Amino acid sequence: MQTKIAIIGYGNIGRAVEQAVLASEDMQLTGIYHHNDNFDHIDADVVALCTPTREVPGFAEQMLQRGICTVDSFDIHGQIYDLRAKLMPLAKQHQAVSIISAGWDPGSDSVIRALLMAMAPKGITYTNFGPGRSMGHTVVVKAIAGVKDALSMTIPLGTSIHRRMVYVELEDGADFKTVEQAILHDDYFVHDETHVVQVPSVDALNNVAHGVNLVRSGVSGDTHNQRFEFNMEINNPALTGQVLVSCARAAVRLQREGRPGAYTMIEIPPIYMLPGDEEQLIRGLV
Amino acid sequence: MQTKIAIIGYGNIGRAVEQAVLASEDMQLTGIYHHNDNFDHIDADVVALCTPTREVPGFAEQMLQRGICTVDSFDIHGQIYDLRAKLMPLAKQHQAVSIISAGWDPGSDSVIRALLMAMAPKGITYTNFGPGRSMGHTVVVKAIAGVKDALSMTIPLGTSIHRRMVYVELEDGADFKTVEQAILHDDYFVHDETHVVQVPSVDALNNVAHGVNLVRSGVSGDTHNQRFEFNMEINNPALTGQVLVSCARAAVRLQREGRPGAYTMIEIPPIYMLPGDEEQLIRGLV
Repeated sequence: MQTKIAIIGYGNIGRAVEQAVLASEDMQLTGIYHHNDNFDHIDADVVALCTPTREVPGFAEQMLQRGICTVDSFDIHGQIYDLRAKLMPLAKQHQAVSIISAGWDPGSDSVIRALLMAMAPKGITYTNFGPGRSMGHTVVVKAIAGVKDALSMTIPLGTSIHRRMVYVELEDGADFKTVEQAILHDDYFVHDETHVVQVPSVDALNNVAHGVNLVRSGVSGDTHNQRFEFNMEINNPALTGQVLVSCARAAVRLQREGRPGAYTMIEIPPIYMLPGDEEQLIRGLV
Repeated sequence: MQTKIAIIGYGNIGRAVEQAVLASEDMQLTGIYHHNDNFDHIDADVVALCTPTREVPGFAEQMLQRGICTVDSFDIHGQIYDLRAKLMPLAKQHQAVSIISAGWDPGSDSVIRALLMAMAPKGITYTNFGPGRSMGHTVVVKAIAGVKDALSMTIPLGTSIHRRMVYVELEDGADFKTVEQAILHDDYFVHDETHVVQVPSVDALNNVAHGVNLVRSGVSGDTHNQRFEFNMEINNPALTGQVLVSCARAAVRLQREGRPGAYTMIEIPPIYMLPGDEEQLIRGLV
């Protein structure tokens, strides 16, 4: 029996979820909705919420109230636990499952960080992002007067320190020095090494490539200098969409097992994200 | 309340488990047993089985029958699913949990492989081991006539292909060429590039360093060239001992939740391996 999945929000992530569903034999796509559509006749076991992150909590509540599972890639790190706490009673009341912050960071990187903590409990983990586009920083620059289009790239410098490379395309008559100072003094940029570069076309630079370099040196038992590193170089929305679909599978399984609630990815067994026969998976992966 | 943990088997791994327990505030070491001890008065929530791998199934059965959880690092890849199937009914009958094959491979590498499969379902994962000592290959060489001591190092050549560097210390009067031919024609070595080197002292070379380079290039949705890499350079028994202790914590939690059974590491939520407050863990790791 295929899992029925619907998508709310059809931007980069929504489209990537669609592709990942079409590539999954155990999934059936039953609808694609825009954020202001009517959901009265939605027919799905699970809904992938691909709206802007701030709209995620409201849609999650709407779906959970109907007993429909949800997955999202809510990415405001400081508010993830609070979202989980908010959705938990609703999910339990309606016997549904919500897997939140299912992407790569938060998401699969979180799983790696938890695993490395279990392998070497003492030590420091550095998460170095990029090179890749920061959506949050890009939005801030686009809002500055005189900016026609912008791109803020995150460049990893190691030990979780990042450089911001900001590319701006100016409106006619805008003054570059004024725009540059506005960026350099914005709260989003003031703590990081930031370079602002004027370009004739931001569109010509756009690229959804991203990556991470996650490093831990730690202590197992009383043995120091245990060294771990995780690297990836990926198409950002394609990975996020795939993780959402894999977590949709896990959400439905948890619901069927009678374990409703709101979960982050470090709270779910990795095998629940995978399709196919349990024996074959264990024989092939363990 | 501390978790009471006992150790059976006190070699490299048993000693590493002891160190990891002593470094864990939520754990209390209640006994260290040798394989032929009497277990009538064992007082533990969970026992770490640190015996040779072939003795693990028997001890796991003995402990599960008493309702005591077990963790082991059973490492015969082709028999892991069968061990899980064998222990499953016993664990359920006695309301206990057994987490099997909890080390780094099988173990944490298995979790990484499962996670990468969820992130890019199509593609090839290569697991490249070493440089580090292969216990299995070393034992085979030690059994050859004329060999006083031996060390077989596994050297990664990429794409899961490995070179064997075999260091032998000969008994007086033994012929190197004869020993070398016996090694090169043994089933353990015949499929790999193997070099045999005579040394005056194998003990002078011993080192428990090991490592892995795990690589996947795969497809997320319909997007190819998603690239992932996990590297580690570690003290081998220290890591295995730490993973056993982290999984002991998970075993007791699963038992307390009323979810008895036999599990591999890809079937348990990563957060179950970690001590401390759930909210702090989620806020810190996700």
